[in-house]
Amino acid sequence: MFSLTVRDRFMVAHSFTGEVFGPAQRLHGATFVVEATFRRADLDADGLVVDIGVASQVLRTVLAQVEYRNLDDVEEFAGQNTSTEFLCRWIADRLSVDLGPAVTGLAGITVLLRESDVAWASYEKEL
Amino acid sequence: MFSLTVRDRFMVAHSFTGEVFGPAQRLHGATFVVEATFRRADLDADGLVVDIGVASQVLRTVLAQVEYRNLDDVEEFAGQNTSTEFLCRWIADRLSVDLGPAVTGLAGITVLLRESDVAWASYEKEL
Amino acid sequence: MFSLTVRDRFMVAHSFTGEVFGPAQRLHGATFVVEATFRRADLDADGLVVDIGVASQVLRTVLAQVEYRNLDDVEEFAGQNTSTEFLCRWIADRLSVDLGPAVTGLAGITVLLRESDVAWASYEKEL
Amino acid sequence: MFSLTVRDRFMVAHSFTGEVFGPAQRLHGATFVVEATFRRADLDADGLVVDIGVASQVLRTVLAQVEYRNLDDVEEFAGQNTSTEFLCRWIADRLSVDLGPAVTGLAGITVLLRESDVAWASYEKEL
Amino acid sequence: MFSLTVRDRFMVAHSFTGEVFGPAQRLHGATFVVEATFRRADLDADGLVVDIGVASQVLRTVLAQVEYRNLDDVEEFAGQNTSTEFLCRWIADRLSVDLGPAVTGLAGITVLLRESDVAWASYEKEL
Amino acid sequence: MFSLTVRDRFMVAHSFTGEVFGPAQRLHGATFVVEATFRRADLDADGLVVDIGVASQVLRTVLAQVEYRNLDDVEEFAGQNTSTEFLCRWIADRLSVDLGPAVTGLAGITVLLRESDVAWASYEKEL
Repeated sequence: MFSLTVRDRFMVAHSFTGEVFGPAQRLHGATFVVEATFRRADLDADGLVVDIGVASQVLRTVLAQVEYRNLDDVEEFAGQNTSTEFLCRWIADRLSVDLGPAVTGLAGITVLLRESDVAWASYEKEL
Repeated sequence: MFSLTVRDRFMVAHSFTGEVFGPAQRLHGATFVVEATFRRADLDADGLVVDIGVASQVLRTVLAQVEYRNLDDVEEFAGQNTSTEFLCRWIADRLSVDLGPAVTGLAGITVLLRESDVAWASYEKEL
Repeated sequence: MFSLTVRDRFMVAHSFTGEVFGPAQRLHGATFVVEATFRRADLDADGLVVDIGVASQVLRTVLAQVEYRNLDDVEEFAGQNTSTEFLCRWIADRLSVDLGPAVTGLAGITVLLRESDVAWASYEKEL
Repeated sequence: MFSLTVRDRFMVAHSFTGEVFGPAQRLHGATFVVEATFRRADLDADGLVVDIGVASQVLRTVLAQVEYRNLDDVEEFAGQNTSTEFLCRWIADRLSVDLGPAVTGLAGITVLLRESDVAWASYEKEL
Repeated sequence: MFSLTVRDRFMVAHSFTGEVFGPAQRLHGATFVVEATFRRADLDADGLVVDIGVASQVLRTVLAQVEYRNLDDVEEFAGQNTSTEFLCRWIADRLSVDLGPAVTGLAGITVLLRESDVAWASYEKEL
Repeated sequence: MFSLTVRDRFMVAHSFTGEVFGPAQRLHGATFVVEATFRRADLDADGLVVDIGVASQVLRTVLAQVEYRNLDDVEEFAGQNTSTEFLCRWIADRLSVDLGPAVTGLAGITVLLRESDVAWASYEKEL
């Protein structure tokens, strides 16, 4: 199995609901460093999993929908805790759609979000 | 599949038995940077794999049992080479116990130990 | 000249005033990874610049005053853009006070804040 | 499952064929930071996946065959785009041969090549 | 003294002249991860050393002049070893010009180029 | 001012004397990732601060004198706390001697030792 990963980043504000979150129930924010990994059993005709330029642009387009936003105000996320894990899945789902024809042949997409140097989460999506 | 990773670190002394270890047969030491990854098929009611605060505290508790120790003197490790691989499994096993009820719903735990910037090991435990 | 650096991190929300900030004028947030460096011409009687435990605790205490906060609501920062550079100086100033007697003998403190994997700022304070 | 990873690096020139590569069709180059991961279901008699010294030396030997080369001139790669993905597989295949008897008991080898701080690829080889 | 750093990267081919370079006399290549640091004694009216957007764009513009190139064919570098150190100075000099009016008030620019995970160089330019 | 940095690493055991060290008074150990920086006002005839191969070899030679050792048993360090800061200076001093003729023209050497991902020290030596 082959994989290709591209990295990008976005900054958001949000708050969490639930006592488990302690001080993170207050409005705060995060820089998320995103690592989007595309998996493919075999390489395509150009010897690639997916073109890095295409992968980077699609990832950028997805992140642009949420960056510099207060996620508490994003309608699509209403009633949800926008946890790091939740955002991983949201990005993976979007990538699988926004890749368009480039998704053909992919076995899966994994999105990893680093919320700091000591904590990160991921979501592995099978295609 | 979702995952959540927290990072911590500990410093120990130890020595190895066996010619394969060369100069590492002498008493020396290491800083181990630990990355403990918890996997879960679905998110819990709070939208999490495991609460980061809980995960960090349990990991800290496990590491506190060995840090600033000479592992050659730890009774539990008698007759064992405390290789990086061995320590990965020991930490993963401990985490699965010390998590208590928080282990419910987890699919697995992976512990990765970086012994330097150019070498690391991991152990993947299924639950 | 000797130096000793400790690293910590905090998460905040804030917004900026001024057209130069573009989309960052909206309420957003950041994870700041903080590297606080203490400089000393000579080592103290224990062979240290400053005890790592003390340095880490003082840094933690300073960061706890702002973490999980919306900096737009912090009275002390009213009328200020809480840019990464500005926060570097605020932390350095606080550290120099909160170190108490441990500040004796230090030549300076530098605070570096990483706002992402591709952008960071610092402030170097002479003592 | 256990794993052991060692890191090394090599620098090469090459060019790509195909419009998808845009400016990378021109002769350019890359530093590849290589992370070779060896997997084993159980530890060997010394408590290891593979000896780090052996793993590092074998990886070095493999990389020495291509480093400081223009890959466009390497006969073995004629007619191939030496993409990061392609090189991952080439290194993994070589490692599995050059490990010699040390390959016994391994479940697999994964080679990850970082071509920059924001892009990397991998190939996972089952044994 | 304040500083602001932005990171980018570029890939090039080149060769070196001189026995000291050993195998690097052959045509090879490198990924250079660039960290451009701008220093200023005081913050500007917006509370910044330099706007991150401006800094990033100017750096990108400078790097675009050499990326995906064989530096042996760049007229401006004829007769020069394009060592990492040499490229640091070339980028710093270009940045100081291409910043245009944004250079006003800056005390200096430092350019650091990482040629791998284990080697890097820098050039510090006073303004 | 130009600089050139090479990175290496070594593993040791040691203990500290003094209540300030808390649990680190027990025999423990560390992996030290070393970054040795050489500074020069102007480049030499080859366009270098110092040849990377030479710098790496000299650093390796210095580190080999202490690696896989219990520093408490090293005669040269008797009666000293081998703190990270202390080791930085020891390495810098050794490098300045062991560089031999390559030290000519250097303005200084800085040695930085990372004892973990969250703590490091340095010593800056003027030449």
